[in-house]
Amino acid sequence: MKTIEWLGRSLKVIDQTKLPAEEVYCEAKTHEEVAELIESMVVRGAPAIGAVVAYGYALGALEFQGSREEFFAHLENVQARLKATRPTAVNLSWALRRMEDRLREMRDAEDLELICAALVDEANAIAEDDRRMNKLIGEYGNTLVPEKATILTHCNAGALATVEYGTALGVIRTAFEAGKTVHVYATETRPLLQGARLTAWELFKAGIPVTLIADNMAGWLMQQDKIDLVIVGADRVVANGDTANKIGTYSLAVLAHTHGIPFYVAAPTSTIDLKMRTGMEIPIEQRSDKEMRELFGKQITPAEIDVYNPAFDVTPAKYITGIITENGIVAPPYAVNLLKMLVRS
Amino acid sequence: MKTIEWLGRSLKVIDQTKLPAEEVYCEAKTHEEVAELIESMVVRGAPAIGAVVAYGYALGALEFQGSREEFFAHLENVQARLKATRPTAVNLSWALRRMEDRLREMRDAEDLELICAALVDEANAIAEDDRRMNKLIGEYGNTLVPEKATILTHCNAGALATVEYGTALGVIRTAFEAGKTVHVYATETRPLLQGARLTAWELFKAGIPVTLIADNMAGWLMQQDKIDLVIVGADRVVANGDTANKIGTYSLAVLAHTHGIPFYVAAPTSTIDLKMRTGMEIPIEQRSDKEMRELFGKQITPAEIDVYNPAFDVTPAKYITGIITENGIVAPPYAVNLLKMLVRS
Repeated sequence: MKTIEWLGRSLKVIDQTKLPAEEVYCEAKTHEEVAELIESMVVRGAPAIGAVVAYGYALGALEFQGSREEFFAHLENVQARLKATRPTAVNLSWALRRMEDRLREMRDAEDLELICAALVDEANAIAEDDRRMNKLIGEYGNTLVPEKATILTHCNAGALATVEYGTALGVIRTAFEAGKTVHVYATETRPLLQGARLTAWELFKAGIPVTLIADNMAGWLMQQDKIDLVIVGADRVVANGDTANKIGTYSLAVLAHTHGIPFYVAAPTSTIDLKMRTGMEIPIEQRSDKEMRELFGKQITPAEIDVYNPAFDVTPAKYITGIITENGIVAPPYAVNLLKMLVRS
Repeated sequence: MKTIEWLGRSLKVIDQTKLPAEEVYCEAKTHEEVAELIESMVVRGAPAIGAVVAYGYALGALEFQGSREEFFAHLENVQARLKATRPTAVNLSWALRRMEDRLREMRDAEDLELICAALVDEANAIAEDDRRMNKLIGEYGNTLVPEKATILTHCNAGALATVEYGTALGVIRTAFEAGKTVHVYATETRPLLQGARLTAWELFKAGIPVTLIADNMAGWLMQQDKIDLVIVGADRVVANGDTANKIGTYSLAVLAHTHGIPFYVAAPTSTIDLKMRTGMEIPIEQRSDKEMRELFGKQITPAEIDVYNPAFDVTPAKYITGIITENGIVAPPYAVNLLKMLVRS
């Protein structure tokens, strides 16, 4: 199974909204189609969104027909359209910045085709970097996993959320492949059930023992000493270490703290946003009421009921034991140590 | 809407598994039919189960045809069958004990019909007591609700969970009827969605402002200072104040504690079990894997995935600010004050 595949002049992605019932693939030929895949969460997961948006930008260049001046103006529109798809994951603007930098380098090239080729090359590099970073995150993270460990994870920070392998699930995969006895508890992750539909399925396919729980069962498992550590992904880590991730992460971090359980965030440096000082600045996406009111087209509550549906929450740095990146594990104080890690690497 | 209605020789209950999409009623004519309604959660909620099981016992008497000796043996079987339906809510055995006490009083009555009439009378008294207790719980609880309050509740401790009015929702109703500005956040309560299907619907019908959230959003709301107090029901409160309630209650109690938010349990004295010293002794019902794997007949995870599905958890007394009963509000230390309240009443 490949989350993302570049086919030369189009992008093929697995439709995550249909999993695990159906393994369906979508093909995008324009940047607009890519934007819609992200908005509808056919593709989700911060690192995956980063790579997909880069290919979307490249498709924006490839799809263009017109004069040289219009080309650059068109790419500005492409950038704006892609950037507006989802607000919380910073990997999206990180990837777009890399694409714009590459465009700037190539600006004087006589041939637009050459510029297009360079943009495709940059998108491929972003995807390749993500693969490499996940493998390194897995190796660093594995040093935190005991020989026998029960690990709680939330949402899906697996192969599906990245180009390959995964961040939080990358750590678990590495530990499992190293012969450790790991057992994963996966929260189902309402409202979109990424834990039940994606994480449980991904781990099951990889032969890694997994037990599915409802989100509200995590505290009770901890109370019974059934969890050794928590590992989650991230959508944005800011300068002081505050971390935005799937809604519910904050509650798990408080519960882990109360029970003395280590709580780790696994994320590539593309998820780190030093421009924001604290988590208070992170924009939190509010998604459609329908996601909360309906399940498989059935109403679970009257249509008139008011709902609250933030896609993410912010976990304060004080609840995070360590941040696992491709450059190593960052410990508190994050304001100092995140910067140090980024400067050195 | 009536949760439970006695029709003379049969019991009519609203089918809570079908709400809110359909308002369907079921009629039980035998104790076996009543047992099945409880097991399948057509009727749920500790106080409602107490009343229904009492009528089930009365139906066990009414359905009987045979000799006098067989009658008493038959009622022992009826008691055992009803008692085995669900293990956690103590109201079930409390109600059965009242029925058995009444049977003992009537044992020498010459006419079996007279005994049957006494048992129906006792079941009616149990239902009537529940109505009365809920009203008193509402009045006592209302003294804890500020003039303007945002209240979080979990699962359904409303009219549907009782004979009428509700425990936790009874407090909210009383505050609302007293003219207070209340806004309720209802957790949807996976896996069976009692919050989305029942609580949100009940409050909406009563005109009480309600916002539905996924279980994993509660901590994030608290972090944003959006919750003033938490009120939940209970399935069993033991001698030291430890309280079994719907799975997820424990996590909410920890989160409330961390955020300095008062956490109240509203329950009639029929829910108090002084025979158990601590919550460790409370049997926790594990329900079917299917409840976790399927939603409206659709698989949300592969059928082979292992799941964990406890119906309840136990909240330690240290996280409970007060227990609201029909005899007043009990404060810590519960080991002393629960006993004092029960002795005085």
